[in-house]
Amino acid sequence: MTIVKIAISGKGGVGKTTIASALIKSFAETHQTVYAIDGDPDACLAAAIGIPAKVSAGIKPVVEMGEKIKSVSGGGAIYTLNPTIDDSILEEYCHSHGNIRFMRMGDVKKGGSQCYCRENTFLQALISLLLLDKDEVVIMDMGAGIEHLSRGTARGVDLMVVVVEPSRNSVNTAMNVMGMAADLGIGRIRIVGNKIRSEKEKEFIEKSFQPGKVLGYISFSNDIWENSMDPVSASTEDELLNGMREVREKILGEAGGIQRSKGGGPV
Amino acid sequence: MTIVKIAISGKGGVGKTTIASALIKSFAETHQTVYAIDGDPDACLAAAIGIPAKVSAGIKPVVEMGEKIKSVSGGGAIYTLNPTIDDSILEEYCHSHGNIRFMRMGDVKKGGSQCYCRENTFLQALISLLLLDKDEVVIMDMGAGIEHLSRGTARGVDLMVVVVEPSRNSVNTAMNVMGMAADLGIGRIRIVGNKIRSEKEKEFIEKSFQPGKVLGYISFSNDIWENSMDPVSASTEDELLNGMREVREKILGEAGGIQRSKGGGPV
Repeated sequence: MTIVKIAISGKGGVGKTTIASALIKSFAETHQTVYAIDGDPDACLAAAIGIPAKVSAGIKPVVEMGEKIKSVSGGGAIYTLNPTIDDSILEEYCHSHGNIRFMRMGDVKKGGSQCYCRENTFLQALISLLLLDKDEVVIMDMGAGIEHLSRGTARGVDLMVVVVEPSRNSVNTAMNVMGMAADLGIGRIRIVGNKIRSEKEKEFIEKSFQPGKVLGYISFSNDIWENSMDPVSASTEDELLNGMREVREKILGEAGGIQRSKGGGPV
Repeated sequence: MTIVKIAISGKGGVGKTTIASALIKSFAETHQTVYAIDGDPDACLAAAIGIPAKVSAGIKPVVEMGEKIKSVSGGGAIYTLNPTIDDSILEEYCHSHGNIRFMRMGDVKKGGSQCYCRENTFLQALISLLLLDKDEVVIMDMGAGIEHLSRGTARGVDLMVVVVEPSRNSVNTAMNVMGMAADLGIGRIRIVGNKIRSEKEKEFIEKSFQPGKVLGYISFSNDIWENSMDPVSASTEDELLNGMREVREKILGEAGGIQRSKGGGPV
């Protein structure tokens, strides 16, 4: 079992992007390349990993890559492509930030213009097409709710991480996500409990899922809450990053130990 | 200017459903009928207005109404229907709860089966088709993020209420929503500030929008937070309901005073 493609899911507001950005940073300590993909058109992953708004606004959305691939491959549906994406094409749609390669799914559209089906379809194809080395990993922050699952956008990932907070509604969404991810053939679905303020809240989440499903718990952070009005909120605090390093180790442990290129960060 | 069709929008986690349910309850005090529509397939509006999970699970999603209308109208696209929905058809897809008539857009689907475009298209048609009396109102809780706007689901509403919390990301989403709602020709877009804990947070929201755009502020509620693990969280607390009564009065005031059938609740 190799885990190199990870999707982050969950109800709106549970902290998907915060958890995704910390997981991305923690994998960047142990892996040569972390592909960080923002799969939410209402996006804020770039800011969370420290890419300034001016820079991220200039990054071409990957949905446009489809046209590019068609033009170099001589036409035809992208699904029939040779499953190797030309790195020079990929380069055009990636923003490198340390050893993080950031991509985003799509732009904000004009109201009433269209759905995001095309973006989701291409993103799904891209996930499948990406052939990764052992020291590379993809982490994808999905949109809120369940439509990326009904659409099958996350098909092809090795691990679905569902972020939950200690609320009934967020656990209900996680249950829906788990069922739908299983429909997609995603073999491994795990939980990260976020915004935990007490032992009672931790137990609430622990009891809501089967034993072994919860990868870790992240404490409620007053700092993150207080700083949310700040224009730049890139400074993921140490406690969060430490928590996600433990989650990373569990992911790698479950996967039977992926080879590392960079010797492992502190745990 | 008549305001009878209201959509509630905003970033995931800002409290859309909490605000929507309190607004629905406050309008139920002054209006003969409040059509409450859950436009999010990852739904929890029913629970928030006090409909038990067992009951809400049995309510037919409105997307199925399209087939029904076709069958009684002798076929043809629903868009070419005479713009009067047969009340006996509507009845089949509504659950009455006091003078609230609850409807939901769609069911949770199998993973990878399809998008929610069909549901959104029908919901948009339904909003347009509903001919309301002066003492009736529609309040629709939209899915998180912006896709219901790019799809145009909310086209035809008279007022878009965007819920924001005091965070940069939630204000950014509100800005996107406002631009896209204007694209859709929605003439009136207003803000409700939620989860306010300090004067500073209130000012942050006040300064983020043009004067007059903010309909009201709802204080952060520790009770709502603490009770979120509870299976039933129907008890909208008094403070929230009072706040939303004030919001209702502003909405009605801006609309030039809609006739009431029930003499007005406390403000």
